[in-house]
Amino acid sequence: MSQFDQVSAVKKANIYFEGKVTSRTIVFADGTKKTLGIMLPGEYEFGTDVKEIMEIQAGELKVLLPGAEEWLHIDGTGEFTVPANAKFKLEVTAATDYICSYIAE
Amino acid sequence: MSQFDQVSAVKKANIYFEGKVTSRTIVFADGTKKTLGIMLPGEYEFGTDVKEIMEIQAGELKVLLPGAEEWLHIDGTGEFTVPANAKFKLEVTAATDYICSYIAE
Repeated sequence: MSQFDQVSAVKKANIYFEGKVTSRTIVFADGTKKTLGIMLPGEYEFGTDVKEIMEIQAGELKVLLPGAEEWLHIDGTGEFTVPANAKFKLEVTAATDYICSYIAE
Repeated sequence: MSQFDQVSAVKKANIYFEGKVTSRTIVFADGTKKTLGIMLPGEYEFGTDVKEIMEIQAGELKVLLPGAEEWLHIDGTGEFTVPANAKFKLEVTAATDYICSYIAE
């Protein structure tokens, strides 16, 4: 499936770090949300409110998940999950295209 | 209207200029397309296939439309139209959030 069907797309972008991280919110019929985003090279720290599943579609980055001691390296495609109310760090080394799913539990 | 409803959102981003210009394609029920995009500061030249209406939602940039001698300055919000099969230049000075509509004639 190369696209999400029957969704709403929010017009305004989410812009962080002066535009080095941006995303678009899409809303599904059941009210759940995903963001489709781009991260440019840089070092970032993010916090979660709910559980997040990050699917990397293209790019290169390292991820330090909460409580982890080893960085996870993703080159090309990959996926990681961040629990709710947690912080995680990213070192992005190539423009990275991602889908983030927000999972209320 | 803050969102586009009942659309399909293409998963993969469109990435240009090493990620300094990126966009997401959304497809409407009638088959027409728009892109929701971000341009970071820089100088760019683009070409059109069909007529494009560019709605600037936030940002700052100058536009040199095809055949024009004067640059159009947009600070905040604005709109411009580019004919089909034409080239136009942009000088973006702040992260710019846009909606591009593709008009087949």
